[in-house]
Amino acid sequence: MKGDIMKSAAPDSTLAFSAEEQAAVYKCIFTRRDVRGQFRPEPVPDATLARILKAAHHAPSVGFMQPWDFIIVRDMGVKQRIHAAFRRAHEEAAAQFDDERATRYRALKLEGILEAPVGLCVTCDRSRAGPVVIGRTQQRDMDLYSAVCAVQNLWLAARAEGIGVGWVSIIDRDELRAALGIPEAIEPIAYLCLGHVSHFAARPELETKGWLPRLKLGDIVWFDGWRRKSGKESLLSELE
Amino acid sequence: MKGDIMKSAAPDSTLAFSAEEQAAVYKCIFTRRDVRGQFRPEPVPDATLARILKAAHHAPSVGFMQPWDFIIVRDMGVKQRIHAAFRRAHEEAAAQFDDERATRYRALKLEGILEAPVGLCVTCDRSRAGPVVIGRTQQRDMDLYSAVCAVQNLWLAARAEGIGVGWVSIIDRDELRAALGIPEAIEPIAYLCLGHVSHFAARPELETKGWLPRLKLGDIVWFDGWRRKSGKESLLSELE
Repeated sequence: MKGDIMKSAAPDSTLAFSAEEQAAVYKCIFTRRDVRGQFRPEPVPDATLARILKAAHHAPSVGFMQPWDFIIVRDMGVKQRIHAAFRRAHEEAAAQFDDERATRYRALKLEGILEAPVGLCVTCDRSRAGPVVIGRTQQRDMDLYSAVCAVQNLWLAARAEGIGVGWVSIIDRDELRAALGIPEAIEPIAYLCLGHVSHFAARPELETKGWLPRLKLGDIVWFDGWRRKSGKESLLSELE
Repeated sequence: MKGDIMKSAAPDSTLAFSAEEQAAVYKCIFTRRDVRGQFRPEPVPDATLARILKAAHHAPSVGFMQPWDFIIVRDMGVKQRIHAAFRRAHEEAAAQFDDERATRYRALKLEGILEAPVGLCVTCDRSRAGPVVIGRTQQRDMDLYSAVCAVQNLWLAARAEGIGVGWVSIIDRDELRAALGIPEAIEPIAYLCLGHVSHFAARPELETKGWLPRLKLGDIVWFDGWRRKSGKESLLSELE
């Protein structure tokens, strides 16, 4: 039945996905991990990096403004400046947790800035397409969200290539700007570490280490209004 | 050679991607579209919708806080309230473009709120994991960005299922809150329209209609600093 729907829905059969293709997309989504401690030193081939960047560039963007730039970081001096900024932020962060959590926090490996062969900063140029952008007239942050979509595309493409990605958010954005010479008007969205990995963990590290559990999906799906359950929703049984 | 790298990088071969699986992931990324005018009325099966929601739920989230909720909208009365909010925002938006662009703007089909069988609001609960969240101590908006990653996962999974998705951002978020009973403390991230489609466009509509061109990727990739070209970067030739 599904095959029939897809045939009628997509007259151009090259645009329909086979069961194998669907499985590959879900495999990518479910096995993607935030990588911090498993980077290997082999360089990422240019052809691979180019494919990953193209995937990012094909993210949705509000009003097709494509607000992103990509700064590839391979210079060790630059990486060291970024790592120093991370360490300062990490100390500040640790002080915010209570004693027991602070100890556990300090034991976590949270970045691979120096080990990962490639650093990548994704930015957002908020004025790229002029003052009035389709779809951004009410929600001014849609340009930032577009750049985040580019990060997620990149992350998934990297996973399919066997390249691990870690998003380092424990860093002051102004220090990141300073390390990379990014002007005030440009918003750094993400600093990512990329590289081949020894392995991809089966589950998120914060889940396996008992920091937080994965939420039950059925507990956060609602119908026709905030926190409304309809009582007759067969969808919920599918979410188990 | 690539096969060798992947074998050594992923001892668990189930985690490596075959060339066919990689191609499926890229096909999904490159053929994903923002759908506004091609929705068909057939309902989205619960099993399909459940898979798409699971994909969203497996997005990365800062400190594993999983800040999202998903409100499924199938009630026509609710859709009509949301559509009314869109129309108000659309009129305000049109007034911001100059004459020639305003005419072209009004001719664009920008949403499928009433036609799409399923509406879906993705929200962000900013206090979900308590006051201190790993990775959010410096960058407070990482929770919002996590919810955006969930939207992009959902969008790609839907594409693989043959389900079109359109993100409606021409809407005042407070009006969206009112239509769905979302409390002040919860941030609505995206209102999406989902459904089977007559077809997926080959390219983004704003590109084919000449609103904006796709940027040349080589023009927005830099090395070790903002707007820095190294001159010896073979990567750039791969981006053509």
